Amino acid sequence: MIKMNPHFAMLTSSYLFSRIAEKVNEHLKQNPDADIIKLGIGDVTRSLPEVSVKAMKRAADELGTEKAFRGYGPEQGYDFLRKAIAEHDYRGLDIEPDEIFISDGAKCDTGNFLDILAHDISVAVPDPVYPVYVDTNVMAGRATGYHHGRYEGLRYLEGTPDNDFIPTPPSDRVDLIYLCFPNNPTGAVATRDQLQVWVDYALGAGALILFDAAYERFISDRNIPRSIFEIKGAKECAVEFRSFSKTAGFTGTRCAFTVVPKVIRAADDHGKRHSLHALWNRRQSTKFNGVSYPVQRAAEAIYSPEGKREVDERISYYMRNARLIRDAVQRHGYNCWGGRNSPYVWIETGTDSWSFFDRLLYEASVVITPGVGFGRMGEGFIRISAFNSHENVEHALRRIEKAL
Amino acid sequence: MIKMNPHFAMLTSSYLFSRIAEKVNEHLKQNPDADIIKLGIGDVTRSLPEVSVKAMKRAADELGTEKAFRGYGPEQGYDFLRKAIAEHDYRGLDIEPDEIFISDGAKCDTGNFLDILAHDISVAVPDPVYPVYVDTNVMAGRATGYHHGRYEGLRYLEGTPDNDFIPTPPSDRVDLIYLCFPNNPTGAVATRDQLQVWVDYALGAGALILFDAAYERFISDRNIPRSIFEIKGAKECAVEFRSFSKTAGFTGTRCAFTVVPKVIRAADDHGKRHSLHALWNRRQSTKFNGVSYPVQRAAEAIYSPEGKREVDERISYYMRNARLIRDAVQRHGYNCWGGRNSPYVWIETGTDSWSFFDRLLYEASVVITPGVGFGRMGEGFIRISAFNSHENVEHALRRIEKAL
Repeated sequence: MIKMNPHFAMLTSSYLFSRIAEKVNEHLKQNPDADIIKLGIGDVTRSLPEVSVKAMKRAADELGTEKAFRGYGPEQGYDFLRKAIAEHDYRGLDIEPDEIFISDGAKCDTGNFLDILAHDISVAVPDPVYPVYVDTNVMAGRATGYHHGRYEGLRYLEGTPDNDFIPTPPSDRVDLIYLCFPNNPTGAVATRDQLQVWVDYALGAGALILFDAAYERFISDRNIPRSIFEIKGAKECAVEFRSFSKTAGFTGTRCAFTVVPKVIRAADDHGKRHSLHALWNRRQSTKFNGVSYPVQRAAEAIYSPEGKREVDERISYYMRNARLIRDAVQRHGYNCWGGRNSPYVWIETGTDSWSFFDRLLYEASVVITPGVGFGRMGEGFIRISAFNSHENVEHALRRIEKAL
Repeated sequence: MIKMNPHFAMLTSSYLFSRIAEKVNEHLKQNPDADIIKLGIGDVTRSLPEVSVKAMKRAADELGTEKAFRGYGPEQGYDFLRKAIAEHDYRGLDIEPDEIFISDGAKCDTGNFLDILAHDISVAVPDPVYPVYVDTNVMAGRATGYHHGRYEGLRYLEGTPDNDFIPTPPSDRVDLIYLCFPNNPTGAVATRDQLQVWVDYALGAGALILFDAAYERFISDRNIPRSIFEIKGAKECAVEFRSFSKTAGFTGTRCAFTVVPKVIRAADDHGKRHSLHALWNRRQSTKFNGVSYPVQRAAEAIYSPEGKREVDERISYYMRNARLIRDAVQRHGYNCWGGRNSPYVWIETGTDSWSFFDRLLYEASVVITPGVGFGRMGEGFIRISAFNSHENVEHALRRIEKAL
């Protein structure tokens, strides 16, 4: 019999969101009339911007004619979209269009990026953390065991109220570092100085930073950097992941991108230096076939003046929810983080995460995310997402206030 | 400095189609007026079916409303598409909708599937072969060297005129076998008996067959199986990859699927048996986020009566080209394979592949694909693709006949 990748056997079987779904289904079975409001999974609820709908339909029409039909596109994405991103998202940051790789998701890219790195590198992940960073490293064989909610072999960077959930670099050397700001799940944002500490560490250690900026559009504070490339030296040591999912409602439409500066190098076994950009390009050319043309046109459209207006309106809409959530939980005397420059509010519950989850589910019919699902340091916290309608959020908060 | 995946350094740097593009560009530089006709890369030229355009536009409109908006879809694909595929493509073959995983490309899936298999399995690939099977195994570390156009560590299954390019199983055991019928590049199709030999071998050896059926729709002969699951025992040992790319003109729209029967098992290091379906599901849930909703609706539409009609019309259109190509090369006394039940014609050139390529490029301004680009056994052959307009194919053939 063929042998499986043995590292898959080490993955903890119960994925956070599956367990939540099970509990919700169980509750619904016993309370068929329960009007459940979901503030758990970070999925947007507002429509796709009108400019994107129009652009996608125009592109579909093009594909429907022999004359304008397009077959295989470039695996790296169309120039029109790479140029729009470079010009609008990286203006003044010295990022070239061909350093931007269009993909069908930041989740896919953060996972697939491991393909081009050596098996025996040391990896540091935050705790709490977006589970995909951890799981994909386990799949790649970098975990040697699982105990007390943590994988042996991975280095955990602890986020706590004491450091406002902004971990500092470890005292020894690691090869690969995951950072995500605005953070999922804590909503924390890092200042320029805090990011400079990380970039300086990476440059000193010869480490690579994988910077997940999927929520950058939620930053309104002008002093908070939106891109790691605003930080001096980052182009020599960082790769940035971004997505149209939360920005422009693309969670079901699928478009994202990864910025791989051409100057970054990785070493082979003989110490010879190879371009990380060339490696990623080879990976993508071989194992990916580019993003659907109409989807790329839909993404391009959000860089138009009308597209920007539609995106801004959606961000403001969700951020009003975030403020409502913050105000409500603070009114009840809970400590919280995030909800400013971020769509997530991270709340200290004073009890264990799953009990609090159960209480809100059973007593308020509101679904949130237990913090411990994001790692051991998330125990005693919950995440509430601002992605819902004003009506649902207000309704949920009234129910939560009543239940507490 | 962070270390790269050292196996990437072993990949031969010049990818077939890049080298072709370079030669064409060079020729165009020296002959700016050359009216080049491309019968090389297997990309479709006919428009996306009207039913798909309409379905995509309807779905885009849905996403543009708050009421019908859809965010994250199932990573495995929407039920509506999985059911349509099971019902239409696998009727009577006992394939359940939840054994079908929707993806953005068969190329992606054949590459990504290696994620769930052990590093130290033995792998057999045909020669000539679609290069992605080889390159992704090299990336996964299964090659120990490269000599004379072949990677050490991989087992090659030779296709020659003597076996009509249908290799037979090796005499010893391998774990993983790639088969592709109708074949890219040779256009060969396997009979029921020939596939039964492979399935029996796999069942006996405990091997897994990765069956690439991306071109199944081009089969018109009722005796030729379109799916490996028409073969007795295949459900216990085979995974099938299919695509809407060549069938329905989706090369730029991106939709494909992979069928992983639930009964197949893979062993862990302790000999414990795990479901391959569950492993692939875990891989996809963690590293993939599903296919764009409007694209899935576009794919669903081709299963309507009108969609089937549009697809059939396109297949017939391309197959007329294939006949023209076959007739023309045979008229000139060349041996050829394929072009029946397949959009590719494989031609014995009597000279080395690249010289023949050069001759057709320089003397006829026609681009074809040198067979040696598909492996050592492809030397002395070329592939001509039927994917172009009738006018272009006729024009190209007149020029080729003149040049020869």
